[in-house]
Amino acid sequence: MSWSGWGDPKQRVPLGEGAILMLREELPGARPALPVDPQDVSLTPPRDLPSALGSFMASTDRAERIRCAAGKSYPDLARIRSGEIPRAPDAVLAPANAAEVTGILEACAREGVAVVPFGGGTSVVGGVDPEAGAHQRVVALDLRRLDHFDLDARSMTARLGPGLLGPQAEAAMGERGFTLGHFPQSFEFATIGGFAATRSAGQASAGYGRFDDLVSAVQMVSPEGTLKTLETPHTAAGPALRELIIGSEGTLGVISDVTVRVRPAPAVKRYEGWIAADFESGYEAVRALAQADALPDVCRLSDRDESRVSLAMSNTKGLAKSLFETYLGIRGRSDGCIVIAGWEGADADVRRRRAASVAILRRHGVVPLGRAPGRAWSHGRFRGPYLRDELMDAGYFIETLETSHTWARYGELYAAVGTAIRDALAAQGSPGIVMCHLSHAYRDGASLYYTFIAPRLEGGEIEQWRQTKSAACDAIVAHGGTITHHHAVGRDHAPYMAAEVGELGVEALRALKSRLDPAGIMNPGKLLGS
Amino acid sequence: MSWSGWGDPKQRVPLGEGAILMLREELPGARPALPVDPQDVSLTPPRDLPSALGSFMASTDRAERIRCAAGKSYPDLARIRSGEIPRAPDAVLAPANAAEVTGILEACAREGVAVVPFGGGTSVVGGVDPEAGAHQRVVALDLRRLDHFDLDARSMTARLGPGLLGPQAEAAMGERGFTLGHFPQSFEFATIGGFAATRSAGQASAGYGRFDDLVSAVQMVSPEGTLKTLETPHTAAGPALRELIIGSEGTLGVISDVTVRVRPAPAVKRYEGWIAADFESGYEAVRALAQADALPDVCRLSDRDESRVSLAMSNTKGLAKSLFETYLGIRGRSDGCIVIAGWEGADADVRRRRAASVAILRRHGVVPLGRAPGRAWSHGRFRGPYLRDELMDAGYFIETLETSHTWARYGELYAAVGTAIRDALAAQGSPGIVMCHLSHAYRDGASLYYTFIAPRLEGGEIEQWRQTKSAACDAIVAHGGTITHHHAVGRDHAPYMAAEVGELGVEALRALKSRLDPAGIMNPGKLLGS
Repeated sequence: MSWSGWGDPKQRVPLGEGAILMLREELPGARPALPVDPQDVSLTPPRDLPSALGSFMASTDRAERIRCAAGKSYPDLARIRSGEIPRAPDAVLAPANAAEVTGILEACAREGVAVVPFGGGTSVVGGVDPEAGAHQRVVALDLRRLDHFDLDARSMTARLGPGLLGPQAEAAMGERGFTLGHFPQSFEFATIGGFAATRSAGQASAGYGRFDDLVSAVQMVSPEGTLKTLETPHTAAGPALRELIIGSEGTLGVISDVTVRVRPAPAVKRYEGWIAADFESGYEAVRALAQADALPDVCRLSDRDESRVSLAMSNTKGLAKSLFETYLGIRGRSDGCIVIAGWEGADADVRRRRAASVAILRRHGVVPLGRAPGRAWSHGRFRGPYLRDELMDAGYFIETLETSHTWARYGELYAAVGTAIRDALAAQGSPGIVMCHLSHAYRDGASLYYTFIAPRLEGGEIEQWRQTKSAACDAIVAHGGTITHHHAVGRDHAPYMAAEVGELGVEALRALKSRLDPAGIMNPGKLLGS
Repeated sequence: MSWSGWGDPKQRVPLGEGAILMLREELPGARPALPVDPQDVSLTPPRDLPSALGSFMASTDRAERIRCAAGKSYPDLARIRSGEIPRAPDAVLAPANAAEVTGILEACAREGVAVVPFGGGTSVVGGVDPEAGAHQRVVALDLRRLDHFDLDARSMTARLGPGLLGPQAEAAMGERGFTLGHFPQSFEFATIGGFAATRSAGQASAGYGRFDDLVSAVQMVSPEGTLKTLETPHTAAGPALRELIIGSEGTLGVISDVTVRVRPAPAVKRYEGWIAADFESGYEAVRALAQADALPDVCRLSDRDESRVSLAMSNTKGLAKSLFETYLGIRGRSDGCIVIAGWEGADADVRRRRAASVAILRRHGVVPLGRAPGRAWSHGRFRGPYLRDELMDAGYFIETLETSHTWARYGELYAAVGTAIRDALAAQGSPGIVMCHLSHAYRDGASLYYTFIAPRLEGGEIEQWRQTKSAACDAIVAHGGTITHHHAVGRDHAPYMAAEVGELGVEALRALKSRLDPAGIMNPGKLLGS
């Protein structure tokens, strides 16, 4: 993983000519800004750790400490690119198994060392910030060695180590003919433990279920001992502890084992592009699909701005571009909203389910664009974060955030959050492009995922982010949306937890934390704040 | 609701001739035993309540106190039929709204009065026993007046009052063309709040989802304030408080509002009988259905003993009986296992889904019996508890219990629990008939639901129940099954919670309870024990 940006440092997804022209025209004034040289990153020396931790492969290597010093949010990257690391872990520990995790947590609780569980480090909400909380020292707990894999083909479940990367888990299942079907944008670099700790949702979660739907049992090592739920398909034995561990974001303990439901790997994956006249008629079509049990496994709807920018970014040129534009014009969809629809499964099943979806799309005036846009989406489905690096190199502020609401209030929330972001950017003298898509639909509502780009305010990057993010979050709260559909809470959303679950809800979670982590060593500052 | 048994006191489901003959032959020695006269029930006088509770329609009426003195488990009924009521609530309060619930809980916490939330009173695990815990006085909180109903047709959700009975909620939705699709055996007399508090599952939950799947948001009044989750289709904002409130069985507070996802009412309901050669080939067929996404909405498989007893109880006689037996003989299914399969929905959808299910059933050697057994099941789907009253009148000990496990360990658990029950009954000198069915299947496993009948041990009814129940629970725990798939924990399963979620899991739930109910007034003795 690149120390200053996303993914494989050898891989780049350069901006095309169309994108560069569009940005120059619509968002003038951005000045390129490359990351500092890695040697120029300033790092405070590590504090000495208790000797009890010596046996757990502690590393105080500079590159390791930098790797675990931040996640991959815009403020994380803006800081690290400028050579600024407010705090790095004093060491990175890599336990070999759950027993070693127990040993580490006991030692850290006794000695007052904060512990930040670290999987892929892909949090975009400050979820792995190495905060020490009430303590002086902090370690990152790198879980990569907890990578066990045990498939029960008869029950179609698999017990997975939390340190398995998405592709590792998929490959192990694929060898036996199964899939987990969980493909968030961070898939290539995120871990099973992270998916569980953050209630991850993937691009095909309409079909396979969100990660929390897939988990049948879970184990968590807390400083006070291990919590373990039974591997049974269902239980009515009281409040669901599984659902307390899922989403706990490392603040209650370390998820050490995740049992998931798996499915036969699909024989066919068919992705297509479609186009709606506008966002409203598009999401009405998606509502109809969801409420008729006819949702494609992948179902995304971009609003006008996102559709327009996607087309500009796609580098379609010359005759192909002109033919495509002519087609859109003839079909009355020149400024339409792109839909990506994908069906996965056995061939006959895909045919039947596609036919059911297509009938509803057509009935709602959504027009086919064929397979090429589907293939293009599939090809680029994990490249968004690489593009962000290019945009930051080019001098832009770029960020994403997400929420969800019921269909009854969906349009209202869509408008309010978009307006809040646009206004906040303009008020700071950096008007931007604000785009949105729907990527997770349910019978009762859907998600809204915003991406916005503006010229960065040089020297004021963090404040520009803070003001824009606050404006968006305030609008979400004011309209009753959730503060996060699948990015989780981390440090950035912690101030909004009281709005989400009420003061008493926060207190209830605090009571739970006090019982499991009385010394307050687990991931300080996240989820419930300081 | 009958004071000493199930349901409408004017309704009876008498045992047929076939059933009487079978019982006389297989379980000889039972002596009829009718309930005592209601006037002969001994009731201690109510203790005086704090004056602060006077304004909440408190009733100390004898019939009301008896109604709320117990649930509907075998030991509950065995005691009450003999005129014995170990403890009745000192009063029954009927708040008009959530604000009155708040007022009652505040007063009770201040004055040290235990509170037992009371919906339909249909618990079969001691969930509404009027225990006072550490306090001297106890009131039942009858929620029948919290019966609001608010449908959001666009989002296909409904906000329901906890006091609505199953048929009331269904009727209100039906008027608008929707259904909740939640039909547990207790449907006619149980409430929405009870479904949520106990993680209820219904007979069509394979199709519509268990009750916990249907709930999108919930509110709970605790002694320390109100918890409320957002009405959004999904959130990743931390541990799921909704899943803490669901299943809390009145021990954390009073569920005051439940938002559920609803569906269009089905145009067609088609139920059929099928028959498998034995239980194992039957559940292999169900596993194949579940793992191919081809489960009927209702899917039940009875083992040999349950199938045999069902046929004896069905009162099929003469030519019909002999034709049926001839057919079973020709098909090689004379001692087979009955499957009830039901599909609900739009006509074309039912046809297609039925065809997919049928192909799998046939491939597994499951043979059709036509619609008559399906209609018979549908007609009698809520009458089981009435039959229990008849059997108790005839002098039998009859009880049910349930668990679930993954497919890999399903056969093992089935055998172990059945053996444990049979052995426990025989060891007490009252050998019985032990029957089992599968009623809830999942991709990863399924439920096991046992019903057993034996001659009661006169004067030793409670001990007979205790020993048999303990043997079954011990076997479940030894084989890693859950202590309850959908009956909940109540008082009877509380001793097994540590086996279910570990000592630390119990401690975590206790920490939560201490924060929300520091005075320990909420439903003492249930879920976490005393």
